[in-house]
Amino acid sequence: MIDKPHLHTVLSPKLLDIYDVENSIVVIIDVFRATSTIATALNNGATKIIPIDNVEKCIAIGKSTPNSITAGERDGKVIEGLQYGNSPAEYSRSFIENKTLVLTTTNGTKLLHMALNKGASNVITGSFPNLSAVCDYLLQQNKNVFLGCSAWKDRFNLEDTLFAGAVIEKVKEHFTIHCDSSLMAEQMYQLHKNDLNSFIRNTTHWHRLAKHGLEKDMEYCVSIDVANVLPTYINDALYI
Amino acid sequence: MIDKPHLHTVLSPKLLDIYDVENSIVVIIDVFRATSTIATALNNGATKIIPIDNVEKCIAIGKSTPNSITAGERDGKVIEGLQYGNSPAEYSRSFIENKTLVLTTTNGTKLLHMALNKGASNVITGSFPNLSAVCDYLLQQNKNVFLGCSAWKDRFNLEDTLFAGAVIEKVKEHFTIHCDSSLMAEQMYQLHKNDLNSFIRNTTHWHRLAKHGLEKDMEYCVSIDVANVLPTYINDALYI
Repeated sequence: MIDKPHLHTVLSPKLLDIYDVENSIVVIIDVFRATSTIATALNNGATKIIPIDNVEKCIAIGKSTPNSITAGERDGKVIEGLQYGNSPAEYSRSFIENKTLVLTTTNGTKLLHMALNKGASNVITGSFPNLSAVCDYLLQQNKNVFLGCSAWKDRFNLEDTLFAGAVIEKVKEHFTIHCDSSLMAEQMYQLHKNDLNSFIRNTTHWHRLAKHGLEKDMEYCVSIDVANVLPTYINDALYI
Repeated sequence: MIDKPHLHTVLSPKLLDIYDVENSIVVIIDVFRATSTIATALNNGATKIIPIDNVEKCIAIGKSTPNSITAGERDGKVIEGLQYGNSPAEYSRSFIENKTLVLTTTNGTKLLHMALNKGASNVITGSFPNLSAVCDYLLQQNKNVFLGCSAWKDRFNLEDTLFAGAVIEKVKEHFTIHCDSSLMAEQMYQLHKNDLNSFIRNTTHWHRLAKHGLEKDMEYCVSIDVANVLPTYINDALYI
Protein backbone atom coordinates (compact mmCIF):
# COMPACT_ATOMS: atom_id res chain seq x y z
CA MET A 1 0.00 0.00 0.00
CA ILE A 2 1.38 3.38 -0.96
CA ASP A 3 1.19 6.03 1.76
CA LYS A 4 -1.17 8.80 0.85
CA PRO A 5 0.03 12.36 1.37
CA HIS A 6 -1.24 14.17 4.46
CA LEU A 7 -3.82 16.92 4.57
CA HIS A 8 -4.27 19.40 7.42
CA THR A 9 -6.54 22.37 7.93
CA VAL A 10 -4.98 25.43 9.59
CA LEU A 11 -7.73 27.50 11.19
CA SER A 12 -5.80 30.76 11.67
CA PRO A 13 -2.46 32.24 10.53
CA LYS A 14 -1.45 32.09 14.21
CA LEU A 15 -1.61 28.29 14.03
CA LEU A 16 0.59 27.91 10.93
CA ASP A 17 3.72 27.76 13.10
CA ILE A 18 2.63 24.42 14.53
CA TYR A 19 3.00 22.70 11.18
CA ASP A 20 5.92 21.85 8.96
CA VAL A 21 4.80 23.08 5.55
CA GLU A 22 8.15 22.60 3.84
CA ASN A 23 7.84 21.09 0.36
CA SER A 24 4.07 21.15 0.71
CA ILE A 25 1.17 22.83 -1.01
CA VAL A 26 -0.47 25.63 0.96
CA VAL A 27 -3.91 26.74 -0.20
CA ILE A 28 -4.56 30.33 0.89
CA ILE A 29 -8.26 30.73 1.68
CA ASP A 30 -9.84 34.14 2.21
CA VAL A 31 -13.44 33.62 1.10
CA PHE A 32 -14.71 37.12 2.06
CA ARG A 33 -13.30 38.33 -0.30
CA ALA A 34 -9.65 38.37 -1.34
CA THR A 35 -9.27 34.91 -2.82
CA SER A 36 -12.73 35.07 -4.45
CA THR A 37 -11.72 38.36 -6.09
CA ILE A 38 -8.36 36.92 -7.19
CA ALA A 39 -10.02 33.97 -8.96
CA THR A 40 -12.54 36.29 -10.58
CA ALA A 41 -10.02 38.83 -11.87
CA LEU A 42 -7.74 36.13 -13.30
CA ASN A 43 -10.71 34.31 -14.83
CA ASN A 44 -11.66 37.59 -16.50
CA GLY A 45 -8.25 38.00 -18.12
CA ALA A 46 -6.10 39.88 -15.63
CA THR A 47 -2.43 39.32 -16.55
CA LYS A 48 -1.41 38.72 -12.95
CA ILE A 49 -2.20 39.78 -9.40
CA ILE A 50 0.42 41.14 -7.04
CA PRO A 51 -0.73 40.66 -3.42
CA ILE A 52 0.73 43.27 -1.09
CA ASP A 53 0.42 43.63 2.65
CA ASN A 54 0.60 47.38 3.00
CA VAL A 55 -0.80 50.44 1.28
CA GLU A 56 2.43 52.39 0.65
CA LYS A 57 4.04 49.45 -1.10
CA CYS A 58 0.87 48.89 -3.09
CA ILE A 59 0.95 52.47 -4.37
CA ALA A 60 4.69 52.26 -5.21
CA ILE A 61 4.35 48.97 -7.09
CA GLY A 62 1.28 50.29 -8.90
CA LYS A 63 3.33 53.27 -10.12
CA SER A 64 6.22 51.14 -11.34
CA THR A 65 4.09 48.47 -13.06
CA PRO A 66 2.84 49.24 -16.58
CA ASN A 67 -0.87 48.78 -17.27
CA SER A 68 -1.68 48.16 -13.62
CA ILE A 69 -4.35 49.23 -11.21
CA THR A 70 -4.16 49.37 -7.41
CA ALA A 71 -6.90 48.14 -5.14
CA GLY A 72 -7.73 47.69 -1.49
CA GLU A 73 -10.44 48.38 1.08
CA ARG A 74 -10.70 49.03 4.76
CA ASP A 75 -14.10 49.03 6.40
CA GLY A 76 -15.90 48.69 3.09
CA LYS A 77 -14.30 51.75 1.44
CA VAL A 78 -11.50 52.10 -1.10
CA ILE A 79 -8.32 52.98 0.80
CA GLU A 80 -7.08 56.54 0.24
CA GLY A 81 -4.36 56.54 -2.41
CA LEU A 82 -5.65 53.37 -4.11
CA GLN A 83 -7.98 53.26 -7.10
CA TYR A 84 -10.42 50.37 -6.63
CA GLY A 85 -11.96 48.11 -4.01
CA ASN A 86 -11.92 44.42 -3.04
CA SER A 87 -15.21 43.46 -4.60
CA PRO A 88 -15.15 40.66 -7.19
CA ALA A 89 -18.01 42.53 -8.93
CA GLU A 90 -15.56 45.29 -9.92
CA TYR A 91 -13.39 42.97 -11.99
CA SER A 92 -15.40 42.28 -15.14
CA ARG A 93 -13.55 41.24 -18.28
CA SER A 94 -14.10 44.60 -19.97
CA PHE A 95 -12.36 46.27 -17.05
CA ILE A 96 -9.54 43.96 -15.95
CA GLU A 97 -8.47 42.09 -19.10
CA ASN A 98 -4.72 42.38 -19.75
CA LYS A 99 -4.18 44.49 -16.65
CA THR A 100 -2.07 43.78 -13.58
CA LEU A 101 -4.00 44.05 -10.33
CA VAL A 102 -1.88 45.24 -7.39
CA LEU A 103 -4.08 44.21 -4.47
CA THR A 104 -3.59 44.97 -0.83
CA THR A 105 -5.35 42.69 1.64
CA THR A 106 -4.56 42.01 5.26
CA ASN A 107 -5.45 38.50 6.34
CA GLY A 108 -4.83 36.57 3.11
CA THR A 109 -1.59 38.28 2.10
CA LYS A 110 -0.15 37.82 5.57
CA LEU A 111 -0.79 34.10 5.46
CA LEU A 112 0.62 33.82 1.94
CA HIS A 113 3.91 35.39 2.97
CA MET A 114 4.08 33.25 6.10
CA ALA A 115 3.64 30.09 4.02
CA LEU A 116 6.44 31.14 1.65
CA ASN A 117 8.75 32.03 4.53
CA LYS A 118 8.16 28.65 6.07
CA GLY A 119 9.25 26.88 2.90
CA ALA A 120 5.99 25.88 1.20
CA SER A 121 6.87 24.71 -2.30
CA ASN A 122 3.52 25.51 -3.90
CA VAL A 123 1.19 28.33 -2.92
CA ILE A 124 -2.21 28.64 -4.57
CA THR A 125 -5.38 30.50 -3.65
CA GLY A 126 -8.76 28.88 -3.07
CA SER A 127 -12.35 30.05 -2.86
CA PHE A 128 -15.76 28.68 -3.76
CA PRO A 129 -15.59 30.32 -7.24
CA ASN A 130 -12.56 28.12 -8.04
CA LEU A 131 -13.26 25.05 -5.88
CA SER A 132 -12.92 22.42 -8.61
CA ALA A 133 -9.69 23.87 -10.01
CA VAL A 134 -8.15 23.71 -6.53
CA CYS A 135 -9.28 20.12 -5.93
CA ASP A 136 -8.11 18.92 -9.36
CA TYR A 137 -4.69 20.40 -8.66
CA LEU A 138 -4.39 18.82 -5.21
CA LEU A 139 -5.29 15.43 -6.65
CA GLN A 140 -2.64 15.72 -9.37
CA GLN A 141 0.29 16.76 -7.19
CA ASN A 142 0.67 13.91 -4.70
CA LYS A 143 2.10 16.24 -2.06
CA ASN A 144 1.16 17.10 1.50
CA VAL A 145 -1.50 19.80 1.65
CA PHE A 146 -2.29 22.55 4.16
CA LEU A 147 -5.61 24.29 3.78
CA GLY A 148 -4.78 27.70 5.22
CA CYS A 149 -7.70 29.74 6.50
CA SER A 150 -6.82 33.44 6.52
CA ALA A 151 -9.31 34.09 9.32
CA TRP A 152 -10.05 37.66 10.43
CA LYS A 153 -7.39 39.38 12.50
CA ASP A 154 -6.28 35.85 13.40
CA ARG A 155 -9.74 34.88 14.65
CA PHE A 156 -11.28 31.66 13.38
CA ASN A 157 -13.96 32.29 10.79
CA LEU A 158 -16.64 30.05 9.42
CA GLU A 159 -16.54 30.95 5.73
CA ASP A 160 -12.90 29.91 5.27
CA THR A 161 -13.54 26.76 7.31
CA LEU A 162 -16.54 25.86 5.13
CA PHE A 163 -14.39 26.16 2.03
CA ALA A 164 -11.76 23.88 3.60
CA GLY A 165 -14.59 21.44 4.27
CA ALA A 166 -15.73 21.63 0.64
CA VAL A 167 -12.22 20.75 -0.52
CA ILE A 168 -11.95 17.88 1.95
CA GLU A 169 -15.27 16.41 0.81
CA LYS A 170 -13.89 16.25 -2.73
CA VAL A 171 -10.36 15.00 -2.11
CA LYS A 172 -10.39 13.07 1.16
CA GLU A 173 -10.16 9.59 -0.33
CA HIS A 174 -6.73 10.47 -1.67
CA PHE A 175 -5.18 11.84 1.51
CA THR A 176 -4.30 10.69 5.01
CA ILE A 177 -6.23 12.98 7.34
CA HIS A 178 -5.47 12.80 11.08
CA CYS A 179 -6.61 16.28 11.94
CA ASP A 180 -9.55 17.37 14.08
CA SER A 181 -9.70 20.72 12.26
CA SER A 182 -10.29 18.89 8.98
CA LEU A 183 -12.91 16.59 10.50
CA MET A 184 -14.74 19.59 11.93
CA ALA A 185 -14.45 21.57 8.67
CA GLU A 186 -15.90 18.76 6.63
CA GLN A 187 -18.77 18.18 9.05
CA MET A 188 -19.63 21.89 9.10
CA TYR A 189 -19.64 21.88 5.29
CA GLN A 190 -21.82 18.77 5.13
CA LEU A 191 -24.22 20.45 7.54
CA HIS A 192 -24.50 23.62 5.47
CA LYS A 193 -23.64 22.84 1.87
CA ASN A 194 -27.30 23.02 0.90
CA ASP A 195 -27.95 26.29 2.70
CA LEU A 196 -24.67 28.19 2.29
CA ASN A 197 -26.43 31.34 1.16
CA SER A 198 -28.55 31.54 4.27
CA PHE A 199 -26.05 30.09 6.75
CA ILE A 200 -23.36 32.67 5.94
CA ARG A 201 -25.76 35.32 7.29
CA ASN A 202 -24.90 33.98 10.75
CA THR A 203 -21.17 34.61 10.46
CA THR A 204 -19.44 37.55 12.10
CA HIS A 205 -17.94 38.62 8.77
CA TRP A 206 -21.37 38.79 7.16
CA HIS A 207 -22.42 41.31 9.78
CA ARG A 208 -19.32 43.43 9.28
CA LEU A 209 -19.65 43.54 5.48
CA ALA A 210 -23.46 43.74 5.29
CA LYS A 211 -23.20 47.12 7.03
CA HIS A 212 -21.55 48.31 3.83
CA GLY A 213 -24.20 46.83 1.53
CA LEU A 214 -22.00 43.93 0.42
CA GLU A 215 -24.57 41.13 0.67
CA LYS A 216 -24.48 40.39 -3.07
CA ASP A 217 -20.70 40.20 -2.97
CA MET A 218 -20.80 37.60 -0.22
CA GLU A 219 -23.45 35.53 -2.01
CA TYR A 220 -21.18 35.52 -5.05
CA CYS A 221 -18.25 34.45 -2.85
CA VAL A 222 -20.03 31.21 -1.89
CA SER A 223 -20.95 30.37 -5.51
CA ILE A 224 -19.12 27.26 -6.65
CA ASP A 225 -16.96 27.18 -9.79
CA VAL A 226 -18.10 30.50 -11.25
CA ALA A 227 -14.44 31.54 -11.82
CA ASN A 228 -12.85 28.14 -12.04
CA VAL A 229 -9.15 28.90 -12.53
CA LEU A 230 -6.05 28.08 -10.48
CA PRO A 231 -4.16 31.13 -9.19
CA THR A 232 -0.58 30.02 -8.52
CA TYR A 233 2.03 32.17 -6.82
CA ILE A 234 5.26 32.45 -8.82
CA ASN A 235 7.91 35.12 -8.26
CA ASP A 236 5.84 37.66 -6.35
CA ALA A 237 2.59 37.36 -8.25
CA LEU A 238 -0.41 35.11 -8.83
CA TYR A 239 -0.93 33.78 -12.37
CA ILE A 240 -3.15 31.22 -14.06
CA MET B 1 -32.09 46.92 27.67
CA ILE B 2 -29.12 45.87 29.74
CA ASP B 3 -26.09 44.74 27.72
CA LYS B 4 -25.38 41.09 28.22
CA PRO B 5 -21.77 40.11 28.91
CA HIS B 6 -19.80 38.66 25.99
CA LEU B 7 -18.81 35.06 25.49
CA HIS B 8 -16.01 33.86 23.24
CA THR B 9 -14.54 30.45 22.51
CA VAL B 10 -10.74 30.27 22.19
CA LEU B 11 -9.82 27.22 20.14
CA SER B 12 -6.12 26.98 21.06
CA PRO B 13 -3.77 28.55 23.64
CA LYS B 14 -2.05 30.19 20.65
CA LEU B 15 -5.20 32.20 20.01
CA LEU B 16 -5.61 33.55 23.55
CA ASP B 17 -3.41 36.56 22.70
CA ILE B 18 -6.07 37.88 20.33
CA TYR B 19 -8.49 38.49 23.18
CA ASP B 20 -8.59 40.87 26.12
CA VAL B 21 -9.42 38.59 29.03
CA GLU B 22 -8.82 41.18 31.72
CA ASN B 23 -11.47 41.10 34.48
CA SER B 24 -13.10 38.14 32.76
CA ILE B 25 -13.80 34.53 33.59
CA VAL B 26 -11.62 32.03 31.75
CA VAL B 27 -12.82 28.42 31.73
CA ILE B 28 -9.88 26.06 31.22
CA ILE B 29 -11.05 23.05 29.21
CA ASP B 30 -8.90 19.94 28.82
CA VAL B 31 -11.45 17.17 28.39
CA PHE B 32 -8.93 14.35 27.73
CA ARG B 33 -8.16 14.28 30.63
CA ALA B 34 -6.76 16.97 32.96
CA THR B 35 -9.90 18.96 33.74
CA SER B 36 -12.03 15.79 33.98
CA THR B 37 -9.53 14.38 36.48
CA ILE B 38 -9.48 17.65 38.44
CA ALA B 39 -13.27 17.68 38.84
CA THR B 40 -13.25 14.02 39.83
CA ALA B 41 -10.49 14.30 42.46
CA LEU B 42 -12.07 17.38 44.06
CA ASN B 43 -15.51 15.78 43.98
CA ASN B 44 -13.99 12.81 45.78
CA GLY B 45 -12.63 14.94 48.59
CA ALA B 46 -9.17 16.08 47.52
CA THR B 47 -8.20 19.12 49.61
CA LYS B 48 -6.84 20.99 46.61
CA ILE B 49 -5.06 20.48 43.30
CA ILE B 50 -1.86 22.26 42.40
CA PRO B 51 -1.45 22.33 38.61
CA ILE B 52 2.19 22.46 37.56
CA ASP B 53 3.72 22.77 34.12
CA ASN B 54 6.93 20.83 34.63
CA VAL B 55 8.04 17.63 36.27
CA GLU B 56 10.91 18.95 38.42
CA LYS B 57 8.69 21.57 40.02
CA CYS B 58 5.98 18.97 40.54
CA ILE B 59 8.41 16.72 42.45
CA ALA B 60 9.71 19.63 44.55
CA ILE B 61 6.23 20.89 45.47
CA GLY B 62 5.15 17.33 46.25
CA LYS B 63 8.05 17.01 48.69
CA SER B 64 7.28 20.30 50.46
CA THR B 65 3.50 19.77 50.69
CA PRO B 66 2.21 17.63 53.57
CA ASN B 67 -0.18 14.80 52.72
CA SER B 68 0.26 15.25 48.98
CA ILE B 69 0.74 13.00 46.01
CA THR B 70 2.35 13.83 42.67
CA ALA B 71 0.91 12.80 39.35
CA GLY B 72 1.51 13.13 35.63
CA GLU B 73 1.72 11.11 32.44
CA ARG B 74 3.47 11.27 29.14
CA ASP B 75 2.46 8.91 26.38
CA GLY B 76 0.09 7.00 28.63
CA LYS B 77 2.66 6.18 31.33
CA VAL B 78 3.37 7.69 34.76
CA ILE B 79 6.30 10.10 34.39
CA GLU B 80 9.51 8.94 36.07
CA GLY B 81 9.82 10.56 39.48
CA LEU B 82 6.06 11.00 39.92
CA GLN B 83 3.74 8.62 41.73
CA TYR B 84 0.46 8.44 39.84
CA GLY B 85 -1.11 9.03 36.44
CA ASN B 86 -3.67 11.35 34.85
CA SER B 87 -6.61 8.99 34.85
CA PRO B 88 -9.76 10.12 36.66
CA ALA B 89 -10.28 6.43 37.55
CA GLU B 90 -7.28 6.59 39.90
CA TYR B 91 -8.85 9.24 42.12
CA SER B 92 -11.53 7.43 44.11
CA ARG B 93 -12.65 8.86 47.43
CA SER B 94 -10.87 6.14 49.41
CA PHE B 95 -7.61 7.16 47.74
CA ILE B 96 -7.69 10.94 47.34
CA GLU B 97 -9.84 12.24 50.23
CA ASN B 98 -8.05 14.92 52.26
CA LYS B 99 -4.96 14.75 50.08
CA THR B 100 -3.38 17.45 47.93
CA LEU B 101 -2.88 16.42 44.32
CA VAL B 102 0.16 18.00 42.68
CA LEU B 103 -0.62 17.44 39.01
CA THR B 104 1.58 18.12 36.03
CA THR B 105 -0.17 18.52 32.70
CA THR B 106 1.02 20.27 29.59
CA ASN B 107 -1.80 21.77 27.59
CA GLY B 108 -4.24 22.73 30.36
CA THR B 109 -1.70 24.11 32.82
CA LYS B 110 -0.08 26.22 30.12
CA LEU B 111 -3.41 27.82 29.23
CA LEU B 112 -4.25 28.39 32.89
CA HIS B 113 -1.04 30.32 33.50
CA MET B 114 -1.49 32.30 30.28
CA ALA B 115 -4.97 33.35 31.38
CA LEU B 116 -3.69 34.50 34.77
CA ASN B 117 -0.80 36.39 33.21
CA LYS B 118 -3.21 38.19 30.91
CA GLY B 119 -5.26 39.42 33.85
CA ALA B 120 -8.24 37.07 33.97
CA SER B 121 -10.06 37.73 37.25
CA ASN B 122 -11.62 34.29 37.61
CA VAL B 123 -10.14 31.03 36.41
CA ILE B 124 -12.13 27.82 36.71
CA THR B 125 -11.85 24.42 35.06
CA GLY B 126 -14.52 22.77 32.97
CA SER B 127 -15.23 19.29 31.67
CA PHE B 128 -18.30 17.17 30.94
CA PRO B 129 -18.20 15.69 34.48
CA ASN B 130 -18.81 19.19 35.90
CA LEU B 131 -20.77 20.82 33.07
CA SER B 132 -23.71 22.06 35.15
CA ALA B 133 -21.53 23.50 37.90
CA VAL B 134 -19.63 25.53 35.28
CA CYS B 135 -22.80 26.79 33.61
CA ASP B 136 -24.47 27.74 36.90
CA TYR B 137 -21.40 29.75 37.85
CA LEU B 138 -21.23 31.58 34.52
CA LEU B 139 -24.88 32.51 34.80
CA GLN B 140 -24.39 33.92 38.32
CA GLN B 141 -21.36 36.07 37.65
CA ASN B 142 -22.51 38.52 34.95
CA LYS B 143 -18.98 38.84 33.57
CA ASN B 144 -17.43 38.31 30.15
CA VAL B 145 -16.49 34.68 29.56
CA PHE B 146 -13.76 32.98 27.55
CA LEU B 147 -14.11 29.26 26.99
CA GLY B 148 -10.46 28.26 26.68
CA CYS B 149 -9.76 25.02 24.85
CA SER B 150 -6.41 23.61 25.89
CA ALA B 151 -6.04 21.83 22.55
CA TRP B 152 -3.16 19.40 21.98
CA LYS B 153 0.26 20.94 21.44
CA ASP B 154 -1.67 24.04 20.32
CA ARG B 155 -3.64 22.08 17.72
CA PHE B 156 -7.42 22.46 17.66
CA ASN B 157 -9.16 19.47 19.14
CA LEU B 158 -12.73 18.34 18.94
CA GLU B 159 -13.35 17.16 22.50
CA ASP B 160 -12.59 20.54 24.06
CA THR B 161 -14.65 22.25 21.35
CA LEU B 162 -17.60 19.95 22.03
CA PHE B 163 -17.49 20.87 25.71
CA ALA B 164 -17.45 24.57 24.80
CA GLY B 165 -20.52 23.85 22.66
CA ALA B 166 -22.25 22.12 25.56
CA VAL B 167 -21.69 25.18 27.75
CA ILE B 168 -22.92 27.52 25.03
CA GLU B 169 -26.11 25.52 24.54
CA LYS B 170 -26.92 26.00 28.23
CA VAL B 171 -25.96 29.65 28.74
CA LYS B 172 -26.30 31.38 25.36
CA GLU B 173 -29.51 33.26 26.10
CA HIS B 174 -27.67 35.21 28.77
CA PHE B 175 -24.64 36.28 26.74
CA THR B 176 -23.83 38.35 23.67
CA ILE B 177 -22.08 35.95 21.29
CA HIS B 178 -20.47 37.41 18.14
CA CYS B 179 -17.93 34.69 17.64
CA ASP B 180 -17.67 32.16 14.83
CA SER B 181 -15.77 29.76 17.09
CA SER B 182 -18.73 29.67 19.48
CA LEU B 183 -21.24 29.23 16.66
CA MET B 184 -19.20 26.33 15.29
CA ALA B 185 -18.69 24.76 18.74
CA GLU B 186 -22.39 24.83 19.49
CA GLN B 187 -23.32 23.35 16.12
CA MET B 188 -20.77 20.56 16.50
CA TYR B 189 -22.20 19.80 19.94
CA GLN B 190 -25.78 19.80 18.67
CA LEU B 191 -24.69 17.43 15.91
CA HIS B 192 -23.07 14.98 18.31
CA LYS B 193 -24.62 15.39 21.74
CA ASN B 194 -26.60 12.19 21.31
CA ASP B 195 -23.63 10.16 20.06
CA LEU B 196 -20.71 11.58 22.05
CA ASN B 197 -19.47 8.15 23.04
CA SER B 198 -19.18 6.98 19.47
CA PHE B 199 -18.21 10.30 17.87
CA ILE B 200 -15.16 10.77 20.11
CA ARG B 201 -13.73 7.63 18.53
CA ASN B 202 -13.07 9.76 15.43
CA THR B 203 -10.90 12.31 17.21
CA THR B 204 -7.12 12.33 16.96
CA HIS B 205 -6.79 12.26 20.75
CA TRP B 206 -8.88 9.08 20.97
CA HIS B 207 -6.42 7.34 18.69
CA ARG B 208 -3.43 8.49 20.71
CA LEU B 209 -4.91 7.41 24.06
CA ALA B 210 -6.66 4.23 22.87
CA LYS B 211 -3.20 2.86 22.05
CA HIS B 212 -2.62 2.83 25.80
CA GLY B 213 -5.93 1.12 26.61
CA LEU B 214 -7.59 4.30 27.86
CA GLU B 215 -10.97 3.91 26.12
CA LYS B 216 -12.93 3.67 29.40
CA ASP B 217 -11.22 6.81 30.68
CA MET B 218 -12.31 8.75 27.63
CA GLU B 219 -15.89 7.49 27.86
CA TYR B 220 -15.95 8.70 31.45
CA CYS B 221 -14.56 12.06 30.34
CA VAL B 222 -17.64 12.71 28.16
CA SER B 223 -20.10 11.75 30.94
CA ILE B 224 -22.13 14.75 32.03
CA ASP B 225 -22.31 15.89 35.67
CA VAL B 226 -20.75 12.80 37.23
CA ALA B 227 -18.40 14.99 39.32
CA ASN B 228 -20.40 18.16 39.42
CA VAL B 229 -18.21 20.56 41.40
CA LEU B 230 -16.62 23.90 40.52
CA PRO B 231 -12.79 23.92 40.67
CA THR B 232 -11.72 27.52 41.17
CA TYR B 233 -8.13 28.72 41.02
CA ILE B 234 -7.10 30.72 44.11
CA ASN B 235 -3.50 31.40 45.14
CA ASP B 236 -1.76 28.68 43.13
CA ALA B 237 -4.28 25.89 43.56
CA LEU B 238 -7.71 24.69 42.52
CA TYR B 239 -10.34 24.32 45.27
CA ILE B 240 -14.05 23.72 45.48
